[in-house]
Amino acid sequence: MSDILRRGRLDSLPDEEIMRYTSSMEDDKWIFDSDVLVDFAHTIMLKEQGIIPTDDCAKILDGLKRIREEGIDSLDHSYEDIHISLEARLIDMAGEDVGGRMHSGRSRNDEVATCIRLRLRKEVLELAEEMLQLVTTMAKIASENYDTIMPGYTHLQHAQPTTLAHHIMGHAESLGRDVERILGCLDRINRCPLGAAAFASTGFPIDRSRTAELLGFEEVMQNSMDAVSGRDFLLETASVLANIMVGMSRISEELVLWSSTEFGFIELSDQYASTSSIMPQKKNPDTAELVRGKSGIAVGSLMSLLTVCKSLPMSYNRDMQDASPHIWKSVENTRASVRIMAGMLDSMKVDKNTMKWQASTGFTTATELADTLVRECGIPFRTAHQIVGILAKGDVEPTLEDIEAVGRTVLGESLTEKGLNEDMVKQALDPMLNIQKRKVTGGPAPEAMKASIDNFGIKTRMWIEEVERIKDHTTDSIEKLMQIVEDYIQQK
Amino acid sequence: MSDILRRGRLDSLPDEEIMRYTSSMEDDKWIFDSDVLVDFAHTIMLKEQGIIPTDDCAKILDGLKRIREEGIDSLDHSYEDIHISLEARLIDMAGEDVGGRMHSGRSRNDEVATCIRLRLRKEVLELAEEMLQLVTTMAKIASENYDTIMPGYTHLQHAQPTTLAHHIMGHAESLGRDVERILGCLDRINRCPLGAAAFASTGFPIDRSRTAELLGFEEVMQNSMDAVSGRDFLLETASVLANIMVGMSRISEELVLWSSTEFGFIELSDQYASTSSIMPQKKNPDTAELVRGKSGIAVGSLMSLLTVCKSLPMSYNRDMQDASPHIWKSVENTRASVRIMAGMLDSMKVDKNTMKWQASTGFTTATELADTLVRECGIPFRTAHQIVGILAKGDVEPTLEDIEAVGRTVLGESLTEKGLNEDMVKQALDPMLNIQKRKVTGGPAPEAMKASIDNFGIKTRMWIEEVERIKDHTTDSIEKLMQIVEDYIQQK
Amino acid sequence: MSDILRRGRLDSLPDEEIMRYTSSMEDDKWIFDSDVLVDFAHTIMLKEQGIIPTDDCAKILDGLKRIREEGIDSLDHSYEDIHISLEARLIDMAGEDVGGRMHSGRSRNDEVATCIRLRLRKEVLELAEEMLQLVTTMAKIASENYDTIMPGYTHLQHAQPTTLAHHIMGHAESLGRDVERILGCLDRINRCPLGAAAFASTGFPIDRSRTAELLGFEEVMQNSMDAVSGRDFLLETASVLANIMVGMSRISEELVLWSSTEFGFIELSDQYASTSSIMPQKKNPDTAELVRGKSGIAVGSLMSLLTVCKSLPMSYNRDMQDASPHIWKSVENTRASVRIMAGMLDSMKVDKNTMKWQASTGFTTATELADTLVRECGIPFRTAHQIVGILAKGDVEPTLEDIEAVGRTVLGESLTEKGLNEDMVKQALDPMLNIQKRKVTGGPAPEAMKASIDNFGIKTRMWIEEVERIKDHTTDSIEKLMQIVEDYIQQK
Amino acid sequence: MSDILRRGRLDSLPDEEIMRYTSSMEDDKWIFDSDVLVDFAHTIMLKEQGIIPTDDCAKILDGLKRIREEGIDSLDHSYEDIHISLEARLIDMAGEDVGGRMHSGRSRNDEVATCIRLRLRKEVLELAEEMLQLVTTMAKIASENYDTIMPGYTHLQHAQPTTLAHHIMGHAESLGRDVERILGCLDRINRCPLGAAAFASTGFPIDRSRTAELLGFEEVMQNSMDAVSGRDFLLETASVLANIMVGMSRISEELVLWSSTEFGFIELSDQYASTSSIMPQKKNPDTAELVRGKSGIAVGSLMSLLTVCKSLPMSYNRDMQDASPHIWKSVENTRASVRIMAGMLDSMKVDKNTMKWQASTGFTTATELADTLVRECGIPFRTAHQIVGILAKGDVEPTLEDIEAVGRTVLGESLTEKGLNEDMVKQALDPMLNIQKRKVTGGPAPEAMKASIDNFGIKTRMWIEEVERIKDHTTDSIEKLMQIVEDYIQQK
Repeated sequence: MSDILRRGRLDSLPDEEIMRYTSSMEDDKWIFDSDVLVDFAHTIMLKEQGIIPTDDCAKILDGLKRIREEGIDSLDHSYEDIHISLEARLIDMAGEDVGGRMHSGRSRNDEVATCIRLRLRKEVLELAEEMLQLVTTMAKIASENYDTIMPGYTHLQHAQPTTLAHHIMGHAESLGRDVERILGCLDRINRCPLGAAAFASTGFPIDRSRTAELLGFEEVMQNSMDAVSGRDFLLETASVLANIMVGMSRISEELVLWSSTEFGFIELSDQYASTSSIMPQKKNPDTAELVRGKSGIAVGSLMSLLTVCKSLPMSYNRDMQDASPHIWKSVENTRASVRIMAGMLDSMKVDKNTMKWQASTGFTTATELADTLVRECGIPFRTAHQIVGILAKGDVEPTLEDIEAVGRTVLGESLTEKGLNEDMVKQALDPMLNIQKRKVTGGPAPEAMKASIDNFGIKTRMWIEEVERIKDHTTDSIEKLMQIVEDYIQQK
Repeated sequence: MSDILRRGRLDSLPDEEIMRYTSSMEDDKWIFDSDVLVDFAHTIMLKEQGIIPTDDCAKILDGLKRIREEGIDSLDHSYEDIHISLEARLIDMAGEDVGGRMHSGRSRNDEVATCIRLRLRKEVLELAEEMLQLVTTMAKIASENYDTIMPGYTHLQHAQPTTLAHHIMGHAESLGRDVERILGCLDRINRCPLGAAAFASTGFPIDRSRTAELLGFEEVMQNSMDAVSGRDFLLETASVLANIMVGMSRISEELVLWSSTEFGFIELSDQYASTSSIMPQKKNPDTAELVRGKSGIAVGSLMSLLTVCKSLPMSYNRDMQDASPHIWKSVENTRASVRIMAGMLDSMKVDKNTMKWQASTGFTTATELADTLVRECGIPFRTAHQIVGILAKGDVEPTLEDIEAVGRTVLGESLTEKGLNEDMVKQALDPMLNIQKRKVTGGPAPEAMKASIDNFGIKTRMWIEEVERIKDHTTDSIEKLMQIVEDYIQQK
Repeated sequence: MSDILRRGRLDSLPDEEIMRYTSSMEDDKWIFDSDVLVDFAHTIMLKEQGIIPTDDCAKILDGLKRIREEGIDSLDHSYEDIHISLEARLIDMAGEDVGGRMHSGRSRNDEVATCIRLRLRKEVLELAEEMLQLVTTMAKIASENYDTIMPGYTHLQHAQPTTLAHHIMGHAESLGRDVERILGCLDRINRCPLGAAAFASTGFPIDRSRTAELLGFEEVMQNSMDAVSGRDFLLETASVLANIMVGMSRISEELVLWSSTEFGFIELSDQYASTSSIMPQKKNPDTAELVRGKSGIAVGSLMSLLTVCKSLPMSYNRDMQDASPHIWKSVENTRASVRIMAGMLDSMKVDKNTMKWQASTGFTTATELADTLVRECGIPFRTAHQIVGILAKGDVEPTLEDIEAVGRTVLGESLTEKGLNEDMVKQALDPMLNIQKRKVTGGPAPEAMKASIDNFGIKTRMWIEEVERIKDHTTDSIEKLMQIVEDYIQQK
Repeated sequence: MSDILRRGRLDSLPDEEIMRYTSSMEDDKWIFDSDVLVDFAHTIMLKEQGIIPTDDCAKILDGLKRIREEGIDSLDHSYEDIHISLEARLIDMAGEDVGGRMHSGRSRNDEVATCIRLRLRKEVLELAEEMLQLVTTMAKIASENYDTIMPGYTHLQHAQPTTLAHHIMGHAESLGRDVERILGCLDRINRCPLGAAAFASTGFPIDRSRTAELLGFEEVMQNSMDAVSGRDFLLETASVLANIMVGMSRISEELVLWSSTEFGFIELSDQYASTSSIMPQKKNPDTAELVRGKSGIAVGSLMSLLTVCKSLPMSYNRDMQDASPHIWKSVENTRASVRIMAGMLDSMKVDKNTMKWQASTGFTTATELADTLVRECGIPFRTAHQIVGILAKGDVEPTLEDIEAVGRTVLGESLTEKGLNEDMVKQALDPMLNIQKRKVTGGPAPEAMKASIDNFGIKTRMWIEEVERIKDHTTDSIEKLMQIVEDYIQQK
């Protein structure tokens, strides 16, 4: 290897251990394709601005196209990164007099920042689509379970009866906010640093808007030093991913709980389960556990990135090379987890009978009984709360007589005289009636649930449209870029 | 104390150590005022919906108003939280028959979630204002330093000459994106969970839109389980704060570097410095160091929150009580750091001579010299890079003769014959001319800087307007709420 | 205030906001007492080395003693830290000509490092004692529950029957390793930085061994730069605390699960539970949830400390001021959690019947059945695993006939002909017999459990002795120091 | 594939996406060799205990040996992990009637825990050796630089003169404590979980001490539930690694600073530097930056592990599969960083002149001047501090006249009359004399440095011996194990 970079300034080549330590080639597979696109766009712009002649442009594009077809594995992996390895290969192909002109007016600093943004844009757009798939699946399950009664929990104690629809849409709403966050972060990813060169831009008369347009970016970054040294978009993306994965760990925790003998609410499809090497009877909810455990990847990646960036002075520092691997790992993991979760939820079997049976144990209707005392007997809620609290110490559902007796002790008055009757008590203690009464916005009553699922559907369609719009724009831009590339190559 | 909550269901009171461990009273000072506002809004709505009589409503509001005036210190701190302590105090004042009605149709779960959102909305709005103040200060400094030449760094090595304006606006652009993130997260904070009750909403005919309106929220949360158990808005806020503080650690790092004898670029105002207890000559940039160190608070708070939320099943769990203190600590710290940073930057003295002198050491004009060879002699950039790289091994700026000699070795041709002359070399080696040539979008050339500062000014004004709009809406809403409160109290 | 530090080198005093931002007075309450001890020891050594006269020594000690008695609240809180505030107070009392001599041959840098180590030594020793209390409680509970059958879980699925003794000792062993880690970290805390001065030690003929001895340290730190700038002992302590708290979150998770209606294994004492403000029937395991949630404090504190220290150059930097508050918060939180956990476990009620009943659901004896086929019929384990796996698909315990049938399908041979009989199957399916067979080291069989609890008792006593030894040494040293102080004051 | 595990209990095989998500085969390359060793030891013990016949034992060992020789790549990667893939391969080779007996009396749960500990023991031992190499290199550099004067810093301000020896030994002492921590954590890694089976041990009469002995462990874990579910040893190891890497980030930060034009203290060897793709003059300290940035890996891995473990109930959960990859990544990264650091330090060029010149700028001798006033004129240190502080406002070194003048203003007395003379001032202002006076333990005076380097050498040798002892024990054990394996295979 005759290193095209080091031959000027530096004498000795690093030994193998140092090369392995400093090289980013392994992780650069993530940006190989983006790098070629960036090279395409930069070269075309150089030609359009008269910085290189048409002929050289065509040769460079042709070489790049071939490099792209050969794939990253054909590149020399002894270089310190993909950019210089790719440029060296181009010079091999097209000669230094042609290939050596491509890097005019730019630096690896703006180049790599652009590559990361291009690839991350793609990843995050696909994540958004997968998230929307997941919440659509959840909304579908919800819409099939308006009447599936289950215990609602606080502190993992039976609290009040609710429905599976209500429970699952609770998670879906949270994931919906994650989609909003993805869109926000996508907006900041989708800005173009190209042309910032090392950090000071360049004296060549380049056109930054043109390369931004060719690559489908929404805008040009307005300060060249910020363009190469800002990694806040990685911190933001990693945060969004961590938020998603922590949310997913909460869903997974419930899937694990619900799969237990004690709960017995669901059974995962065999696809998502595994057995034991020693205990032949076991059917374990392994996939749910893994989603839960893999939240550690998202959290760790975020921490890695925060640590890398802390106290870094301007502008580019080599530390940053160690930033992007954390984001690739995290986004790949989150995307897979989201897809897995959708399949796992879609294929699980719900044991409605067990859910329903549990919904009425643990005196879950106590709140409604207290509310009934308030409404029917006109006593304050806090007093009703005390009366029902005392009744709750017994292990069985209270009868009208029990209520009357405790009411007398606490109030010194008769609740039946204040209007309470057998029928009211019976109604208060019926889980389904409980649910049907909870029809305010966001409540579990089937009619309220229908409204909130409809509302969620509207939001979902809006998000889908926004994601499609951005995706279409980027796809169109890249297609146009490729057409221009072909046109030049034809001219050759 | 006769505990109004525990008297029903539980027998023994916790001993003091358990009380201290489980109580949130210490941190609840953050939400005392919000709690009274939530009580105001809820009580008014209960009255409007006919759930409590006008008379009781007036008495409750009157009691609440007095409690607010007395302040949190007057409350009984032996209760487990502010909500129940406040309700107990109200019952003391207004009697259980009146005060005991306030908690109808809600729970502490939705109450506390609403309080946190109210207070956090306020904090985040004020943070946004302070951030906008900071970037305005930075833009001002930049606009005074278009011509302040300094070395631009990559890898902390002199790279190319740039200006202080360019450098400082690099940071400002990054902080501007933080403002965008604050606005995004504010949008998700500003949604109302009230009326979700324990998680299942309520059978009382409450009006959630009305309380949301009274408290100035932008919308009502659409799933009552999500409303009480979602803490993703805290994770998002903590992430935004961590991103800000890591960015601030980068600025601080530079302030520390620049204050060193070796750099000698700036001197902080004595206000922001301190001396040593032993070394009388010292003037230390302590405040910059503290901002840098306090990034640890933001990062740690984020990690605490991620840890709290990981694997929590639905819906409310007491773990969540330990979530909000982390956000209060972090937002308070970030706000103070932002204010401090603005003052520190505004009052520092810049040593322009030292900056300028350093800008021309380390052969920072090498890139321009290589570019000149490309432009004037028509050789490829990669070849020019090699020639100048070899020249850079010497310790002094190269003369035309040096260049010619190396050119011959590398190219086997004469660069002067290809058009290079003394004047071109001189121009290439002049730092200010270097800067003036870098006039593409985002570059350091004074005209490009003016354009980008103008552009930043436009964005800043847009952000200010958006922050004002939200702030005005919340202020108006709370004022209207207070007027309604007064009206009821007058009627009493 | 005439600032004794700033009056020389700096002109203006910080305004109030800067003071609040930069002051550590709030957190310095943690080291007030240590600071006085350090002052005592340093002053005595200065006198013994002839650096200050006996008379001045006596006056300084007398002043310090009075300051200690007055307490930290009497100090002027407008100083930037406790050290300078305390010195200023001393100068007020004893005059600058006397009090102004105390700081000879040292700096706040070594002073604060010594104070932190002194206080942390105390905290960590007490934590060790509390941990030992906790594991002793657990061993006691275990020794009362050799025969308390419960389901053992993997993947939260019933796996094999075990006993509560076995389960609880699993946690105790883990906490025992935490005690070992505490002792390791204590060893590194207990080294004396005093005399390192700002970082370069001093030209005064001080005796570092003497101050180390007076303060009960085990050794003197061997490099004065490391002595003031090393905070690895805080990172280590924070790591140990995080490890403990994550372990506690695992125990707490189980207490929450076990308190649920679905599990029904335990009931926490009312002391450790709370009820709901809306749902009067609720008895929530709040304290266990809080321990689980408070693991976030330990994790966050560790992350804060790592962030503070990352990339800090030598030697002291003001960032470090922000290190110790994180450790104080974490150690206080961990100590309280450990005490709470001991009380919570000690007072919980175990429902042995429910545990036992669950132990036999879910075909938990499948492994033993497979093992029986291996032992009695001589077939390979992997084949036996397959046979029992097929049997496990049915919902009921298999009979000899079922086994025979599946055996024929898989093996093409008769298992009864290979020796299997009714009695063997019956024994294999009996949970208690299952447990009794698992008597290898570490197994749940009562005799094995007794051995492992005994073994644990021996380790516990060894740890207690080691903690006592260190504690006695530090207590004795401080007592001797106080005696010397008194002697000098008497001489006055 | 006919899955030997799933064929009994589960119907469908996971599709490819689920397989990829759930499989650990990729990371299991780390434990392939350990897994074979564990299989060897377990099989031999089964034979010795009479659980399997000699003949089967020999065949199994022979198969395992061949699998080991074939390497992990020959295994079927469609299995969920290495353990089951390896067992399946063995059954292919030796038939189910023989190979199917190997898994008797154990589970993958204890198997994988043992494998992780075996491999981690090896990694951590090698890390210890590499750390000892690094500190030895540092001590060597120190011993060559007793007299290399440089400025000592606090707050990155020139504080007092010191030597390179003093500075570098400051870091070495800190790394020495890391070695102590490694030894502590190694002690807890080196305990054997094998025989715990799924978590309940087994009814087979296995001998856990024997397998522990064969594998070179120091002791047997005393609770089988703890043995399979404890991952605190990973948290501890990750913490130790994070502590090391944060320490290394501090050294790296200085190497970057010192390589800057402004400092100019060192020049890294070309091997450890790189240049720019655009700026031909650049020589960047990339390797130091990468070490600094790679601290993010250690911190992130620790956070990942803490997140994985938080709230996990007993005993084994699949989440744990995601724990070990984090530790492999971190230990590999730390080991490489330590080796790189040693090479980088060993090959750097120190510019002693620049260091020396800087040592006397910034009035670094002010402390000694103040101390001189105390010693020679008998005034209190605090007063001397004020006088010198005022002198420090000027930009030049004070003369006797300057001192006299300020002394009069502050004291109202003459310092020369109190004994101060020209010679004393001159001595106080001489950096080398300053250093020579700082000869207390840990100070920079050459004689003190020699003593502390000697002391460090003694500690180093002690650590080396301890590491060797453990390493020899494990190597011997594995060699003996291999001999037994060979003996059985010969008998076949």
